[in-house]
Formats: sequence, structure tokens, C-alpha cells
Amino acid sequence: MTKHTIILQPSGSRGQVDEGMSVRSAARELGVEIESICAENATCGKCMVLIEEGRFEKYNIDSKQSNLSPVSAEERAYLERRPKLLKEKGWQIGQVRLSCQCKILGDVLINVPEESRGNKQIVRKSASNRPIEIKPAVRKYLVTMTPPNLERPIADWERLAKGLETSMRLVHGNDAVLPRWYDLDIDYQCLRTLSKTLRDSKWNVTVSVWKDKEVIAVQGGYHEESYGAAVDIGSTTVALYLCNLRTGELLAAESEMNPQIVYGEDVMSRIQYAIEHPDGLEKLHKAIISTLNKLLSKAIISANMSLRVQVAKQAPVEGEGIASDKEQERPRNDIRLEDILEMVLVGNSTMHHILLNLHPKDLGLAPFVPAIHKSVDIKARELGLHINLSGNIHVLPTIASFVGADTSAMILAEEPHKQDENWLLIDVGTNAELVLGNRKRLVCTSTPTGPALEGAHVEYGMRAAPGAMERVHIDEATLEPKYKVIGVEGWNTDHAEFKGQVKGICGSAIIDAVAELFRTGIVDSRGKFNKKLSSTSSPKGKRVREGESGWEFVIAWSEETSIGRDIPITQQDVRQIQLAKAALFTAARTLLKRSGMENPDKVILAGGFGSFIDKEKAMLIGLIPDCDLNNVYAVGNSAGDGARIALLSIEKRNEIDAVTRKVERFELPTDPEFQNQFMLATSFPHMSEPFEHIAHLIPNRVADPLAKNFMK
Amino acid sequence: MTKHTIILQPSGSRGQVDEGMSVRSAARELGVEIESICAENATCGKCMVLIEEGRFEKYNIDSKQSNLSPVSAEERAYLERRPKLLKEKGWQIGQVRLSCQCKILGDVLINVPEESRGNKQIVRKSASNRPIEIKPAVRKYLVTMTPPNLERPIADWERLAKGLETSMRLVHGNDAVLPRWYDLDIDYQCLRTLSKTLRDSKWNVTVSVWKDKEVIAVQGGYHEESYGAAVDIGSTTVALYLCNLRTGELLAAESEMNPQIVYGEDVMSRIQYAIEHPDGLEKLHKAIISTLNKLLSKAIISANMSLRVQVAKQAPVEGEGIASDKEQERPRNDIRLEDILEMVLVGNSTMHHILLNLHPKDLGLAPFVPAIHKSVDIKARELGLHINLSGNIHVLPTIASFVGADTSAMILAEEPHKQDENWLLIDVGTNAELVLGNRKRLVCTSTPTGPALEGAHVEYGMRAAPGAMERVHIDEATLEPKYKVIGVEGWNTDHAEFKGQVKGICGSAIIDAVAELFRTGIVDSRGKFNKKLSSTSSPKGKRVREGESGWEFVIAWSEETSIGRDIPITQQDVRQIQLAKAALFTAARTLLKRSGMENPDKVILAGGFGSFIDKEKAMLIGLIPDCDLNNVYAVGNSAGDGARIALLSIEKRNEIDAVTRKVERFELPTDPEFQNQFMLATSFPHMSEPFEHIAHLIPNRVADPLAKNFMK
Repeated sequence: MTKHTIILQPSGSRGQVDEGMSVRSAARELGVEIESICAENATCGKCMVLIEEGRFEKYNIDSKQSNLSPVSAEERAYLERRPKLLKEKGWQIGQVRLSCQCKILGDVLINVPEESRGNKQIVRKSASNRPIEIKPAVRKYLVTMTPPNLERPIADWERLAKGLETSMRLVHGNDAVLPRWYDLDIDYQCLRTLSKTLRDSKWNVTVSVWKDKEVIAVQGGYHEESYGAAVDIGSTTVALYLCNLRTGELLAAESEMNPQIVYGEDVMSRIQYAIEHPDGLEKLHKAIISTLNKLLSKAIISANMSLRVQVAKQAPVEGEGIASDKEQERPRNDIRLEDILEMVLVGNSTMHHILLNLHPKDLGLAPFVPAIHKSVDIKARELGLHINLSGNIHVLPTIASFVGADTSAMILAEEPHKQDENWLLIDVGTNAELVLGNRKRLVCTSTPTGPALEGAHVEYGMRAAPGAMERVHIDEATLEPKYKVIGVEGWNTDHAEFKGQVKGICGSAIIDAVAELFRTGIVDSRGKFNKKLSSTSSPKGKRVREGESGWEFVIAWSEETSIGRDIPITQQDVRQIQLAKAALFTAARTLLKRSGMENPDKVILAGGFGSFIDKEKAMLIGLIPDCDLNNVYAVGNSAGDGARIALLSIEKRNEIDAVTRKVERFELPTDPEFQNQFMLATSFPHMSEPFEHIAHLIPNRVADPLAKNFMK
Repeated sequence: MTKHTIILQPSGSRGQVDEGMSVRSAARELGVEIESICAENATCGKCMVLIEEGRFEKYNIDSKQSNLSPVSAEERAYLERRPKLLKEKGWQIGQVRLSCQCKILGDVLINVPEESRGNKQIVRKSASNRPIEIKPAVRKYLVTMTPPNLERPIADWERLAKGLETSMRLVHGNDAVLPRWYDLDIDYQCLRTLSKTLRDSKWNVTVSVWKDKEVIAVQGGYHEESYGAAVDIGSTTVALYLCNLRTGELLAAESEMNPQIVYGEDVMSRIQYAIEHPDGLEKLHKAIISTLNKLLSKAIISANMSLRVQVAKQAPVEGEGIASDKEQERPRNDIRLEDILEMVLVGNSTMHHILLNLHPKDLGLAPFVPAIHKSVDIKARELGLHINLSGNIHVLPTIASFVGADTSAMILAEEPHKQDENWLLIDVGTNAELVLGNRKRLVCTSTPTGPALEGAHVEYGMRAAPGAMERVHIDEATLEPKYKVIGVEGWNTDHAEFKGQVKGICGSAIIDAVAELFRTGIVDSRGKFNKKLSSTSSPKGKRVREGESGWEFVIAWSEETSIGRDIPITQQDVRQIQLAKAALFTAARTLLKRSGMENPDKVILAGGFGSFIDKEKAMLIGLIPDCDLNNVYAVGNSAGDGARIALLSIEKRNEIDAVTRKVERFELPTDPEFQNQFMLATSFPHMSEPFEHIAHLIPNRVADPLAKNFMK
């Protein structure tokens, strides 16, 4: 058979292919995937390519002498339905071709534009910064059938399944491992409306297939997009991300307070509530389900609003694409709840259990065992979630009683299991989860840190909100503080007049303040106030005083506040931070020790907390292990990112399933040295660790018999 | 390694096996399956065997010198818990052994008693008469776990799955293809109660697994039996069979009228009802679901009643088997709805669609297409069927719009696809389904036969019930009839006085009567009454007369009836039978012709109808094709049998799935010769076929120009 050379840009792939092969098939042979969802029927336009050479040189485009087969009637019909696109891009019919239709008759140079490339990727901000290849669990296929007649009265499902098998093979290639038509399945609720849909649409439908084996939606006509939702159920906040499953695009992000908060502030009190009340679990479960349904509706509305804005900007184009009469009635691009075909959910083990209506009792009682580790796929209707009636939900695996599906999502997003270096991932909340390791081994644990790091249980603590102090600096020489307030530009000292503007102190400012008190010698390494300062008549000591509940340092005088009172950091506040940071550090140290390591190569702080704290000050108080500060990263809502990645990639789901089966769990209370380590870790930054990377900040004047240990 | 000879009775299998191997493993190596469901823990007793030789000869049973390992403590403990069984059977401990426990140390001769043999079979009455090997979709495994602790806080499901993997491998053997623990699944509703069940039962549970991949029930303690229900949904009657899934035993058979009858007598009128009423399908669907739930409850009650009778007959035995405290509270052997772990359902395509809540519209409109052919597995809860919450229903495949899952079940029961001969299967009702063929090819069709063959639409027709005439004979010489009546011993002429006892004529008697009218020349081959008989003054003609609606033959005089009127067979009745039998015969002839055959080797009549008719008379009127009468079989409710077979054997389900994919369907109206053939078939027995096997019964005196064709 005659062979011709084909070169594909921008990848530069080239090779010899048989004459007569379609450009799309030839590209696949060379490892370049070109999109197509219409089973190569010249109706979806996903596979458009630009002919760079091999057409213009010598031959007329419609001539039989061209290096490509002439533009067919179907191809021309499709392209003529997209005048706006062609005009915008400056493409002419013949230069732009449908690669499923044009056959190779001579050497050609082809450009595959970005939108036609298969294996789309999204690039995320993360410590690993790897692009994620989009391979959603739900894929769409256009299936066109010949209607049944008396000679071939084959049933509706079998007719569809045979057509679907053909479409799937065309899209995936003949060498793909796909089920035969008689092994394909259809969800029962989807089967119920199948016959009507096939007839209403004149046997021309778009079929959504889950994991390339179960049909979960059949829509009349041609529908390109499918949608999914990724959800991170936090104890405090529930965040939902509505995504386009084909492109990976984020269409809306919505969040709500977790309504379970009325039954208990933290997970332990919710577990307690479920234990003590016969209908406790039911109430907690119904609360989260109804919030999820609310978030779904909100996300749909906001996605449609922004889509309408986009559509309004474009001139309407008559007759682009194919759609059944009925479909054309509703505004183009409008997304409905039934268009959401899958949801991926993550959350800590307690949130995970309550979501699935599993009793969380044993999560809170020794030996602290979840009901299930492995990821769960169930029909959304089993939980009363109002997405497509046949849509599935996927819940990521849990690792331990206090290391939940949110940590699995964090691992998926940050990928410590693909590193040669040792990475330490920390997700700080009321409870901190820690994961340490590399491609060979991952170990994890969790520790209660208390709410101090989030600004609660601190005398003037508050959540990060307008009026909250978020940064604190203390001048070494004068011991005068300055601070930044959320909602106010610059430092307080930048303002000529700064009055009545501070309400309290949020988490990041508390860490700043404690670190600064230590750095400037106002508190010593054991966290005790230097009372001597107050007895000096120098102005340096005027902010150190004995208050109602013990010694304290005033950061804001009453006139600077909106509450009419001085805002100090108290001895009690310092103690709270000491306990929290000691817990976190000891957990990290235990993991490091068990893995035979000194310090991690990288520290990754996940969660809202990590995004706002000052890395240097966190290390100065010994919150995180010693490490080059350039290798400390704050990655934001990593659990939410992981949920989105799992939503967009079936391979990533398999990956995290496999990884979590191998993660080793350590329960801290079983570690004999825990108490001892914990005591050493209450000091700033630590009683017995050098902390080389911030050594220059550690004050040299502490009246501490163990000071020599600090400085070596 | 030392080898020893083992001989297994009654199979006679023998071979050399390694020293130290358990008798059960050794038996498997020789191809003899011995039961076990306790994962070889010496707790289920399913694997008991008798040691015939190798123990008594020279050695003491507990001696290390025996040809088998000594009776272990666990083994002895188990056997001592079964004193009654041992006494009844006359077995001694040591002679009877648990084959999973005793190891081979020398040559042995072992007897495997019937109850210990794996691969149990049930033998059915059917044309094929093949035994069915019991391989239910649901199997039980005993799983004993070590409880979780702080060192190994693995989740409940994973703990169970790992234990289950071990149990499954022990029961099935290491070479069986079974999923790994992390690929096992648990139904969501079953997961919800898992944690509590495991703890309540102290980590000792019986696990029911569907298709060896999905856990659908977890019961505390040891439970040997599981149950299932097979259902045949007829348009008129719904029959349910409650079976023991392990032994195949039929525990209860219950039936109810199909409640849909109030919405329409036959399938077409029910389809019409669903089309014409917006809530029509919902009403029809709910009616059948509620009847199925009623049948399930009835079957449970009647099975428990007969089990209690059996238990009462036996002396109660303390402590046999293991059961959790809670389990022991309820009467032993009591079956509950939640113990029913699977249902298999069959029915014609309309019943199939209504059961599954699929609109039957397109079954009744050309081109007559079902929604689905393939078998359906869904959770019973999706339909509101009150078996175990995680139990599945399996619906057999449909073949065509008028050849439903009941025909699939009939094929499964009769097995034409395994024959070298050509078999013709006929299920006669208001609609007749026909299947013809052998192992190489099966063809099928259906034809409306009208209700005449069931006694409806016949002037004095009635259903088979007390007072119905069921047999008719006419004396050739005197033309005097005699008849049998349901509920009355012998023929009417056997009674000195026979008065006021007949109410009407049921299906089998109508066929008898018409055949006898033809045989005795009262009607001719075209079905017309010989009017001349009435005009003769001979007593032979006194029953032939012109009645209100035409010519008729009186079978019972008014004084013999309970309705005070003469009961005749009318010209109209004969015509009804002619139409029905012509439809049936033409359908059969069409299949034969399309398969290139003259006549079938065997004719199998399924359904209640077939069981009561006189085969010879049916052939005399040309209802069934010519065939040796010894090869005409009536097999009763073959569809119900097929449903039971599918319930008891997963392999049989796969078999019928594959067979129905290959069955060829013919739609009669598309056959160009249909009308022509139909006309010829209205004659008795046929206008142009010889009917050699009943030729001696065909009267020679018909005044018919075509008579020569009959007799060759």
C-alpha cells in the first residue's frame, strides 16, 4: 500500500501512514489524539484541523489531485453552519477540515489547534505544579440509529447499545479495551425514559456513559457538554465547585456554612450528638444533604448567569450545531441540575460518615475505626442529592479515623507519592492531619491542635473578618508593636490617625504576635512573660503589665479599637499557642522519626490557615519543623483541589485508591515517647532542636538553663 | 514428598495426594467437591465424611500412627455438639470426620455422604429431564475477624473484606478466579449497618455475597441457609416459588390472580389502558408490586408453618450450631422477608415492562419493539419489593415484543438449544409463543390465538373449575356423546342418574368435542355441520339441530346441567376453534418452513393448557403439527420452572442470556404467505397436509372436492 508522510503541529510528530487513512486515525497512529464525540459523523466539529501544506501548493482544494480527499458534502454542511467561528479565526473551508472526514492521499503538514487536541489538561497551582490530564468518568457519545422496523424489531436498549459500541470504538480507537454492546449497562432509572427519548429525538441521541460501561443519561439530539460538581465538606464550611467535565473549566464556586454546626462546633461534639440522640445521625445527615442541594442550585444559577453574559456578548448564530426541537426551546448554554452527571465529595472521616449516613460512633471511641476506607460510588438518588437521577457520587477513600477523605484529596493534589524528596503535608484546623514521605513510603497521623490557631479560645481571638488584626510586628528596640487590620490599607502606623478600627485578633496575627513576643524577649523560650520589663520606668515596658487574668502585652490601646478596650496578648493566649504548636510539632517529629529522617525537604501547608500565616514566624515559634523557608509552601484549599482533580480524572481516582491502601498510619497516643516529646516541644521554638534556618531570629538572652541546646 | 492413595466413594475417584493434605483439599484435587461454608474453621459441619478404611485396621483413632491425623479439639467440640445426628446415623466420632480438619497420613478410603457433596443438583420433570446443578448467585461465607485495636485500626469494611477473601478462597479453592479483597464491593444499604453488626456479633458473621463480588447481607453468628423467590407473572395468574438457595428445595408455592385484570383482560387492553390514562402505567405497576409483596408474605408464612411442623417432630437439640444470643431468641428455622436475598422474575413482555415500570406503549404499536431484551439486575428496593434491603432482582431476557421473558424461561427449562433433534415448544394462552430448533439454530414467533382455546368466547365456555366439562367422546355408530366433569368421578354415562351437574365447557373439552364432531362426521373438514343428519328420522341425528344462532350439536341435555339449559357446541364455537388452531398451526408451519423442515421431532406443550388437552385430539383438529404422538409432551408451567432454574443457577442465567441473543425472530405478518397458509390451516386437520400420525382417525366420507389431498 502506498504510504505518505504526515507531520502534525505543534507536537511535531511525524510518520508514514497508509494512503486513504483519515487524518484523525493517522494522528492517533502517531500518538496525537484529536477530539471527536460524534462517532466520526461530521456533526460535532471537535476534530477540526488546519491544513498547512499539501493542499495549497499545486492542487485545487476540491480536485481529486489534492493530497487530501475533497471536502465532502457532510463536511461542507457542517462547516457552513459555523460561519462565525470561521470568520473569527480567519479560516476558510478547505484550509480547515474535519480530520475524521479527510483522507490522506499525499504528504501533508497538519496543525491541530488547541481546542481539537485530545487529552486536555488543566494546570493547577500546587506544590507539585503538575498538569492534570482530563479523563472524566462520564463521557458523551453521539449515537445515530436506524429506526426499528418489522424486519428488525430489535429492542430499544440493544439498538442503542450496538450504536454506542460503534461510537465508542470510533472515539477511542479499535485497540481500546471497551465492553461489547451486550456487556454495556444502563442505569435502571435511565432505562425508564429511554424509549420515549429515542422516539422523540428520531433515533439521534447523545449518550452519557459512566466509566465507559454504564449509560446514565440519554439526551435527544447533540449535546456537547457535561457537568460535574466537586465538594469539600469541612466541619465549618462546605465548598462546591461546578465544573465542565469536558474542558475542566470551573464554572462556579459556592460555599455555605456547614449547618451541622448547630449540633456541635467540632467533629467530636457532633459524634457525641449522634451518640446521645436517637435521631441525631438523621438530623446531621439531612442537614448536610439539604445544604449540598442548596449549593448545587446556587452553583447552577451563578454558572448560568455568567454563561448568559458570555452569550450576550456574542452575536447569536443561527443553526450552529444540532439540537432537537424541544432542546432549542430553552436558552442555549443553560445548565440544569439534571445536566450534573457526577459529584465527587471529600471531607474528614466524620463528615464522610455523616454524608453517607453511617454512624460516626466508632470514629470517636477507641480504637477509632472508620466504617470503610475505600472510595465509595453510589447513586446520588440513594442520598437524595438532586443531580441527574442516574448520576453517581464518588467519595474519596478515608485513611484513618482522624485522617479522612480530605487528606486523601490533599495527597492527590500535592502528589508527595511521586516525589524523590521527602515532603511534609500539613492540613491545620481544629485537628491537624500530617502526611510525610515520598514515592517509596508515605506515613500519616493526626493530632488535635485545638482552636487557638484559628483565633478561637484566645482572649480577643476572632475569625479572619473585617476588623481583625492579621499581622503584628514588634520593634526590637522600642518594643512598640504595629499591626495590619483586615479591611484597612497598610500598617496602623501608616495612618496619621488610627482610631476605633480593631475588633480582635485572627489566627495569623496571633502567631505573629507570639513569635514577635518571643523574638523581642518579651516572653522567654518557655513562654513566660519577662515581668522585669514592666518594672522598668523606660517606655519599653509600658505595654507589659499584669492584667485581670495574669501577665499580658497590649497590642492595641482602647482608642484604636472598636470595642473600647485594650487588646492584649495574655499569658493564657501564649499557653494556648504553645499547646497547639507542641501538638503539631510532636506529630511531625514522630512521623519524621518513624521514617528515619531528620527534617523534611519541603513543608506544604494546606487549608485556609496555611495561606495567611507568616512562614518565618510559624517556624520561629516551632509550629513547623526546621526547613529552608523557600521550601515552605502554602497551597490553599488543597482538599477542594483534590476533589476537583478526582472529578476530572478517573485515573487520578484509581491512583489515590492505590496510594491510600499503602499509606501507613500512626496513632500518636500509642507512641511511648509522645508525652516526653510533647513537653520538649512546648518551648519556643523547641527545647532540644536547633532550628538552623531561623536561628538568627532566636534571642540570645533567654534566662534558660537549657539555652545552650538551642544555639548548639 | 510422600504420597498416599485416597479413594472417594460413591464417585470412585482415586488418586495419589501429598501427605499432610486435608481430606477436603485432596478430594478437590480429585475433582470431588465437598461442601464448607465456615472457611474450614470446624464450625459448619458441612464437610463431614466417613472413614471407611485406613483407620480401623491397625491403629487407634487418636494415635499418631493412624492413616489420618487425630481428631482435633475443635473437631471433637463440633461433633460433640451434634449428638442427635450422630445417633440417628449411627456414626462414631473418628469414623465420621470433618474433612477440612483431618489430614492424610496414609492410604484411606473415604465415603462422602450425600449431604456433604458439593455441586448439588435438582432433577426436574421436563422434556429434557436434565439435572440442574445448583450454583446460586448468592453464597454465604462465615467470616471470623480479630477485633480492631490501636495498633491495627483498619476500617470495618476492609477488615471484613480481607477475612472474606480468605473464606472465599478456602471454600472455592486457591485456583478459583475470585476478586481480591479491595475489589470486593458492599451494597450501600448493607454498609450502613455493618459496624453495628460486626460489634454486636463480636466479629463473627455470616456474609452473603452476590455473584462472589458484592456483599449484600451480614448476619451476626453462623447462618447456613439463604432463600430466594422465583416468580412467573402471567397475565391472569402470578405464581411465586420460595426456594432454599443452598439445597434447591421448594419451600412454598403461592399464587394470586394478577390484579391488573381489572384494567384489562389481556395484554393489549392493558397496554391500551396505559396509553389512555396518564397514571395508567403507575396503577398497573403498583398493582403487581403490591401483589408480589403479598405473595412473598404468604410464602414466608406457609414455609414457616411447614418448617415448624418438621421441627416439632424432632426432639429439640441444645446448642447445635452457633448463633448469636439475639438470633437464638427467634424460633429456629424461622424465615423472615429479609432472609430472601434474591428474586428471579419472568413474564411476557407486557408483564415484564409493567413490572419494571417501563411504558408498554411500543409493545403494542408497530413495529412492536420492547424497551430492552437483555436480562436486568436491579436492587429490589428500586421497585419497592420487600425482600432484603440489599437484595437484587433478576429479570430474564425478552426475545421480542410478543415473545417475552416467560418464553426465555421455557427455553431454559426445556433446553431445545442442547438437542440434536428439532423440538417445537409451544406455550398456548390468549397468545401463543412458539420456539423451534436445536443446538444449531432456534427460531421463534408468536401469534394471537384468541381466548377460545381457554374456553372463553365459546357459547358455554368456562375456565377449568368444578362443573366444567373436561373430556368429551362421541360414539361413532350412535353419535351419542359421553363426557367427564371436573369434580365428578368417571364419565357421565357411568352414573345411573346424572342430573344437574354440568355448568359449561372448559378448553380441553372444547378441543375434544370439536375433534369428535369431525371424527364422527358431524362437521366436515371445513368445519360445517352436516345438516342432513338432522333431517333423518334416525335417533343418530337428534342432537344436531338448528339453534338460535345457527347449527349446533347438543352435548348435554338441560336436565344434566345446573343451568337448566341444553349445552351445545355451536357452529360459531367450531369457527372460533378453527381460527385459533389455524393461527397456531400457521405459526408453527412458518417456523418449520423457514428452518427448512417438514415436521418437528418433538412437540412440547407448555402452560396449563397443554397439561389437560388430549394430544391425539389436538392433532386431529390440526392444532399441532404432525408428529409421533409419543413425542408430544405436556410439561406444565415451564416458565415457572425456568424461573426457578435461573434462581438456583447463575450459569443457567448466563446460558439463557447467550441463547436469547441468538434466537431468530419472525414476525408473521411480514411473511407474504401467511394469509394463504392461514386459510389452508382452517380445515380439519389441514387442507393440504397429510397428518400421517392420525390419518386413521380422519373420516373418509367428507363431501369435499379436495378430500383426495387429505388421504393422499
